[in-house]
Amino acid sequence: MRSTIPAYAAAGPDEPLRRTMIPLRSVGEHDILIEIGYTGICHTDIHQVREDWGKSIFPMVPGHEVAGIVVEVGSAVTQHAVGDRVGVGCFVDSCRECANCVAGHEQYCLRGSLSTYNALDRHGRPTFGGYSTHLVADENYVLRIPDGIGLAEAAPLLCAGISMYSPLRHWKAGPGSRVAVVGMGGLGHLGVKIGNALGADVTVLSQSLRKREDGFRLGATSFHSTADPATFIRLAGAFDLIVNTVSADLDLDAYLGLLAMDGTLVNIGVAQNPCTFGTFSLLVGRKSLAGSLIGGIRETQEMLDFCAARGLGAEVEVISADRINEAFRRLVAGEVRYRFVVDAASIASSR
Amino acid sequence: MRSTIPAYAAAGPDEPLRRTMIPLRSVGEHDILIEIGYTGICHTDIHQVREDWGKSIFPMVPGHEVAGIVVEVGSAVTQHAVGDRVGVGCFVDSCRECANCVAGHEQYCLRGSLSTYNALDRHGRPTFGGYSTHLVADENYVLRIPDGIGLAEAAPLLCAGISMYSPLRHWKAGPGSRVAVVGMGGLGHLGVKIGNALGADVTVLSQSLRKREDGFRLGATSFHSTADPATFIRLAGAFDLIVNTVSADLDLDAYLGLLAMDGTLVNIGVAQNPCTFGTFSLLVGRKSLAGSLIGGIRETQEMLDFCAARGLGAEVEVISADRINEAFRRLVAGEVRYRFVVDAASIASSR
Repeated sequence: MRSTIPAYAAAGPDEPLRRTMIPLRSVGEHDILIEIGYTGICHTDIHQVREDWGKSIFPMVPGHEVAGIVVEVGSAVTQHAVGDRVGVGCFVDSCRECANCVAGHEQYCLRGSLSTYNALDRHGRPTFGGYSTHLVADENYVLRIPDGIGLAEAAPLLCAGISMYSPLRHWKAGPGSRVAVVGMGGLGHLGVKIGNALGADVTVLSQSLRKREDGFRLGATSFHSTADPATFIRLAGAFDLIVNTVSADLDLDAYLGLLAMDGTLVNIGVAQNPCTFGTFSLLVGRKSLAGSLIGGIRETQEMLDFCAARGLGAEVEVISADRINEAFRRLVAGEVRYRFVVDAASIASSR
Repeated sequence: MRSTIPAYAAAGPDEPLRRTMIPLRSVGEHDILIEIGYTGICHTDIHQVREDWGKSIFPMVPGHEVAGIVVEVGSAVTQHAVGDRVGVGCFVDSCRECANCVAGHEQYCLRGSLSTYNALDRHGRPTFGGYSTHLVADENYVLRIPDGIGLAEAAPLLCAGISMYSPLRHWKAGPGSRVAVVGMGGLGHLGVKIGNALGADVTVLSQSLRKREDGFRLGATSFHSTADPATFIRLAGAFDLIVNTVSADLDLDAYLGLLAMDGTLVNIGVAQNPCTFGTFSLLVGRKSLAGSLIGGIRETQEMLDFCAARGLGAEVEVISADRINEAFRRLVAGEVRYRFVVDAASIASSR
């Protein structure tokens, strides 16, 4: 039984992440112990460490895009076995009783789902994320990662992938539907891949045309710069669904003008400032502005199965853990194509 | 053949409405001539006269809630006959060719539908509304008013009624669904009646409890004051659909907090100022903010048939035309229960 493991943790909002030892909870009867292979770096990790969204719990071990191998299972575990390839996403528990939990939408648990890190579990213990070598989690909140997809490429699917898959499915992206993805970063590039795999016609709306070749390679059929005002004239009424992945302030009225009748603009990024729009932009054409947050366990499994069947994973840059702080800087600067993934073996071995 | 008819018109944005004579176009082969019985006074009439939404065309004869009797039909008319009870709503023509027109959503005509007044038709002639004795319109934009509903009570259905019916139907208000109507005026009171007739559980959210008894009488099952902060705590997550009929600025985040998962807040009123919300209010629970504008011809007919079958009409205060200016003042002050309707006979007879 392990009682402490190495991890990369931030001691406070202005501190770099440093290697440290953290406690690992013992494996309960419904728990599984995962030896982590790879953990994606999500922009949320940076927001949480920096306390951009409110008070955080320190020391903090971020990481909610976790892929690894089961090395131990509790006595009552039925869904996973030692040697299985598994993943953990943004939450590791929920009330399991409210209407949303019962319906499989644990991410919207009415009592609040338990975040994979930066939260206190029902016993008051802090949760620690995947910037570490191991993780213990209840089997009901652990996903199977099918063969046909590498663990490094699978890790970002646990947050970025499901964040795109869920709204694309909910708003029925598929053959004949015209989808625009705003922003082509960690989220957006998976939106292009998954949207295309679902059969939709996918357009990328990006600040510049820098990533155009990548966009086409990943499955987009067109790619436009939002810095060019002509884009908003040329594409008026062109989309059934727009998925906005960027956190920057958008001119929502301009983007709503790109929707056809009954179209929906879904925000999956968290804007720092309040959003503003004019009522007429929604009234004319019965348009909707919506939001979507990751996905439930059932849907996340469906997404992993869908992606694995198509050999579809994230485009990753694998880094050793001693480069996490550099990766944070590069991520904020938009200098990654398209997701950093930490090799957990480098946490075990680094000193 | 009539060439001019009496009407109540505004000569400019700061002018009262006065009795005058206006030209009446001759009855073309697809046209019908309606002798108007009653015309509702919609808040839009005041906005248009006052140029609140941009430049208007004067002299202006408002009125887009028109109910009357067919007195003449063009040679090619097939859908209406002399003596029929008919109505005209917010538009009297559209391109008939775009995707939205073909789908029966003429209100969202991509080339712009032709407003019943304050617009220029395809020949450059100004359109005049229902504050007059007669109206000529293409038969395809004229609705049948079934027996079982009085003309005075039917008139407001042509705008206020369909404005409520369309979103209630589109967002599936019915048995088991929990609907809130924000504001109980001309629109809202019909929302209560129609929502109840559709089988939904209807709550009124009103500034005060002044209209509570009326709310229950019209079919609401509960009635809450939005001035009471406790309302927003008590009703958190309580609704599947909120239809907002008020033009005043709302705290959208507070209202979004009243929605259950996958709930929608639909605006049908036109807010004067830009609307503001925080992204988290939509993200948590996959909620939507939407807009809806009147309805198409097919759906308006469906609504009239639905209402007539249930003997459901507006609660009206019938006035003579010489009281239109007073009615405008009282409407702005919220002093009407719940719709003013002008008796067109008083236009013919007044001097």
